[in-house]
Amino acid sequence: MQTESQSRDVFYVSDGTAITCETVGHVVLGQFPFRANEQTFPFIESNDKLSELIRQIEQSFARHGVRPLVFFSMVVPELRERLQNAPAYCYDVLGSIVQNIQADTQMDPVPQLQRSRSVGKDTNTYFDRIAAIEYTLAHDDGVSLKGLEQADIILLGVSRSGKTPTSLYMAMQFGLRVVNYPFIADDIRALRLLPEFEMHRHKLFGLTIDAERLTEIRENRMAGSTYASTQQCQTELATVESLFRREAVPYINTSSLSVEEISARILEKSGLKRRLF
Amino acid sequence: MQTESQSRDVFYVSDGTAITCETVGHVVLGQFPFRANEQTFPFIESNDKLSELIRQIEQSFARHGVRPLVFFSMVVPELRERLQNAPAYCYDVLGSIVQNIQADTQMDPVPQLQRSRSVGKDTNTYFDRIAAIEYTLAHDDGVSLKGLEQADIILLGVSRSGKTPTSLYMAMQFGLRVVNYPFIADDIRALRLLPEFEMHRHKLFGLTIDAERLTEIRENRMAGSTYASTQQCQTELATVESLFRREAVPYINTSSLSVEEISARILEKSGLKRRLF
Repeated sequence: MQTESQSRDVFYVSDGTAITCETVGHVVLGQFPFRANEQTFPFIESNDKLSELIRQIEQSFARHGVRPLVFFSMVVPELRERLQNAPAYCYDVLGSIVQNIQADTQMDPVPQLQRSRSVGKDTNTYFDRIAAIEYTLAHDDGVSLKGLEQADIILLGVSRSGKTPTSLYMAMQFGLRVVNYPFIADDIRALRLLPEFEMHRHKLFGLTIDAERLTEIRENRMAGSTYASTQQCQTELATVESLFRREAVPYINTSSLSVEEISARILEKSGLKRRLF
Repeated sequence: MQTESQSRDVFYVSDGTAITCETVGHVVLGQFPFRANEQTFPFIESNDKLSELIRQIEQSFARHGVRPLVFFSMVVPELRERLQNAPAYCYDVLGSIVQNIQADTQMDPVPQLQRSRSVGKDTNTYFDRIAAIEYTLAHDDGVSLKGLEQADIILLGVSRSGKTPTSLYMAMQFGLRVVNYPFIADDIRALRLLPEFEMHRHKLFGLTIDAERLTEIRENRMAGSTYASTQQCQTELATVESLFRREAVPYINTSSLSVEEISARILEKSGLKRRLF
C-alpha cells in the first residue's frame, strides 16, 4: 500500500499534446511533499483511448488504495465527463480561466482541439522559428562569426557556463537568433573582445558561474583533468568576469539556474523581446 | 480607442520565469477571437518591480479604455493582493488547483519562489538534460553515426521534413538522445536502410510530409531550385514512404503539426518514455 506522504500516481491527460497539463502539473506538484510517478496521455480524442486510460486509472487506484491525481484538458464535454467519473482527483488545468475571461470580456470562446503552436495557422511563425534554430545551430560554440548583423544576442562565457543549451532554448522558445562564443583557456591570459564583436557591442551578454559548480560540471565531463581543476576554473572565471566589467558587458551567474531561468533572466536584463510566444 | 473584439493587451506576470503563465495564457487566448498584444514580466519579486508593472497596467487601461488581461503566478500574498487591485482582469494560472489538491490529499503545499526545473535540487536531471542535448547535436543531420547504442530514437526523413527541430526539442524537453539522418536526393533511387541501423531497427522512426508543404518550405530556402520543385518533392516522398512501409518503420506526417505536436506524437507512437519532466 502506497503511503500518502511518499508517492502518488499522476496522469497528464489531454486531447492535444498535454504539454500544458505537464507544465502546470509539474509546477503545482513542486509545492507538495510527495513524490510523483508521472505519466502522460496525449491525444485522448476518442472513447476507445479514454477507456484504456480509465482502466489504468482504476488499476492505479486498486493497487495503491488512493486516488491518483489527473491534470487534464479536454474539449469534448462527453469525454471530459467520463474522465471526471474515474476514481481520481481531476484538475482541469485551464479550469475556470476560460469561463472567467468569457465573463469579463463578454466574448465567447471557441474551443479548439489543436491548441499548441500550430503550423497551419501561422506559417510565418513556423519559418521564423526554424530560421532561428538554424541560425543558432550555425553559430554555436564559435563555429561561425559570419552574419552577426542578423544576431539578436551574442552570449559569451567560459566552457560549460551554459551557453549552448541556453542558446538553443532561446531559439526554440523565443524565436531568437543566438550566437554563442566560448573563451578558450589559452586565450585567457590576454583576454579581450574579438574585433568582430565591436560593431555588435550592444548584443553582447555574458554568462558566468561559481568556480565550485563549474568544477563539478567539468569533472562530470573530464574527471581529474586540469580543465576541471578548481584552480583553472577560478582563474578563467576571474579573468572573464573582469573582462565583462571592464567592457561593460551585462552578465549573470548561472550556477543555480535552469536553462529556462537563465533564458528568462537574459531577456529581462537585456530588454530583448521574444519573437514567438 | 481599442475595439473590444480586435485586440487586447495581455500581461504575463510572475515572481519566477513566467513560463507557466505564458503557456497557459497562450493556450487560453487561442480560444478567443481577439488579437493579444502579449508582454512578459518575469521575476516580479519586489514592491518596486511591481509598482513599475502596475504603472504599465494603468497606462494600458488609460490608453485603451478597457482593462488588460493579466495571467499571473505569485507566491507572496501582499504582492498578489496589490496586483489584483490594479485595473486589470487577473487570472491566477495555478489558481484553485493548489487549494484543491490540498483539500483532496490533506497535505499542505510549500509555496516556492523558484518553480521551474531547478538545477540545485537535482543535479542529475541537469546533467541528463545537457548530455541529451550534446548527444543530439553531435548526431544531427547524419553528422555522426557513432554510438548509436546510446540513442533513444533515430529519426529518418527527407530534407526539411522537420528532423532537426524535433530532435532538439525532444532532447531539451524530454531528455532523450536523438539521432537524425536525412535521405539525400542522390540516394533516393536505390533507397535502403543503412547497415549501421540494422542493429537498432527498433529505434527507427520516420517523418514524412505532404509534397505541397515540402515544396513551400524548400521554396522558402531555395526559391526556384530543382530541390524545391513539386516533382522532386513528390518523388522523394513517395520513395521514402515506400521504404518506411517495406521496412516496417513507423512514421508520421508532420505537415500540419508544430514541433511540440510532432514530438508528442512520436512519444505516443513509439512508446518511448521521456526521461525528464
